[in-house]
Amino acid sequence: MRSAQWDGGPVSVLERAVSVLSAFDAEHPEMGISELARRTGLAKSTVHRLVGDLVRLGLLEQSANGVRLGIRLFEFGQLAPRHRTLKEAALPFMEDLREATQSNVHLAVLEGIEVVYLEILRVRDSQPLPSRVGGRMPAHATGVGKAIMAFSPPEVVKARVDAGLERRTAYTVIMPGALHRELLTIHETGVSFDRQESAMGVVCAAAPVFGPDGAVQAALSVTGRAERLDVERMAPAVRTAALALSRVLGAPR
Amino acid sequence: MRSAQWDGGPVSVLERAVSVLSAFDAEHPEMGISELARRTGLAKSTVHRLVGDLVRLGLLEQSANGVRLGIRLFEFGQLAPRHRTLKEAALPFMEDLREATQSNVHLAVLEGIEVVYLEILRVRDSQPLPSRVGGRMPAHATGVGKAIMAFSPPEVVKARVDAGLERRTAYTVIMPGALHRELLTIHETGVSFDRQESAMGVVCAAAPVFGPDGAVQAALSVTGRAERLDVERMAPAVRTAALALSRVLGAPR
Repeated sequence: MRSAQWDGGPVSVLERAVSVLSAFDAEHPEMGISELARRTGLAKSTVHRLVGDLVRLGLLEQSANGVRLGIRLFEFGQLAPRHRTLKEAALPFMEDLREATQSNVHLAVLEGIEVVYLEILRVRDSQPLPSRVGGRMPAHATGVGKAIMAFSPPEVVKARVDAGLERRTAYTVIMPGALHRELLTIHETGVSFDRQESAMGVVCAAAPVFGPDGAVQAALSVTGRAERLDVERMAPAVRTAALALSRVLGAPR
Repeated sequence: MRSAQWDGGPVSVLERAVSVLSAFDAEHPEMGISELARRTGLAKSTVHRLVGDLVRLGLLEQSANGVRLGIRLFEFGQLAPRHRTLKEAALPFMEDLREATQSNVHLAVLEGIEVVYLEILRVRDSQPLPSRVGGRMPAHATGVGKAIMAFSPPEVVKARVDAGLERRTAYTVIMPGALHRELLTIHETGVSFDRQESAMGVVCAAAPVFGPDGAVQAALSVTGRAERLDVERMAPAVRTAALALSRVLGAPR
């Protein structure tokens, strides 16, 4: 916090408000003041005041067990242009891809060293997946993350490596050298694979999506269970969908 | 603003930050400092400082023509429990309903006097609809809004009537008496209709969705073009899907 000394400065208030909002996650969708104070490290009186203001502004809602994130945040989030433009353009191609592969389809962007899933189309009898719309995963442990990093400037990959290549399963690529070699291959082939690297039993094939400036913007993937999905066979379909989406987004040929 | 005199108090900073975020909409996805100052009524220097902080916190992003809402807001929004629980439970029923009716399917909740669309499943050759995921519409002018109001406490309907029943088309119900009579009918039949009341050429059939406490939580609808969609014929399908979803949400029989 920039102004830790001065309780009431603009930056610290906003930072504290965001830290209260950030305390909620999929496992903690509702909290009381005490739990919020514990998870944010803020004083109970500060949390109490902030929560009152956030409820009044619609960013939080009262609920049975305290407060929860409000629909107002959902409304703001749906207006985020990067999400909206990409998702709207991608949906028809994602539907085609699900139809053609009979598998789960993901659309993700890179945010720093993690991917954020913008949309997921599931097949009817899909087993549980580790991904969630709006959820994050370490970029190096996912097919979409590797597809994006392979076409990103070196400093993007460096930031990921510098942050530590955390192990998600026994198959996660955790050696910088191995990651660099794999990204070179992906750069050549235009397709990346996740072979049980993000979660045991889950595999995927992914391909990068490019924007009008020729820079990578996102990635599409086809995901399924290791025992059922042949990722090599899925690769051409994913790459075709990603190229078609890139064309619609105005990417140079 | 509660503390208009004191530039820097917690409430005013948060309020100002939310008013900056609220300045963005579907027609204004990107803005510079001057336009933000004009749309919020805040001083340029205040906007400049707020925007810097909001960018640093990830709630705004730099873009070609100024700033835009950031992916961080999308992430927060996806965690809003009311959105997430409902959408996850509703999706399979919404897909069935689209399949069975070959029409666009909406899921909406009531927020004050407006409905907010949580999810929309479109059919492939859908003509443009006035609705948008995360978008709002006046409750009295929509099938979903009337379905929810018909099962809401009287003060909810009163708030809508007191705010004025604005006219959206020549068919919008704008007389309080007519609205009350229609809500009574909907309460009896469990189905509501929008006959070109929200937009010319667009019709829908909607039904309420109930939660574990027996209170109305949301509504489902089937929407299409007036010349093609027979809303009376769609009503049983919509009602069936809404009842099935209510059952899954734990509504008492």
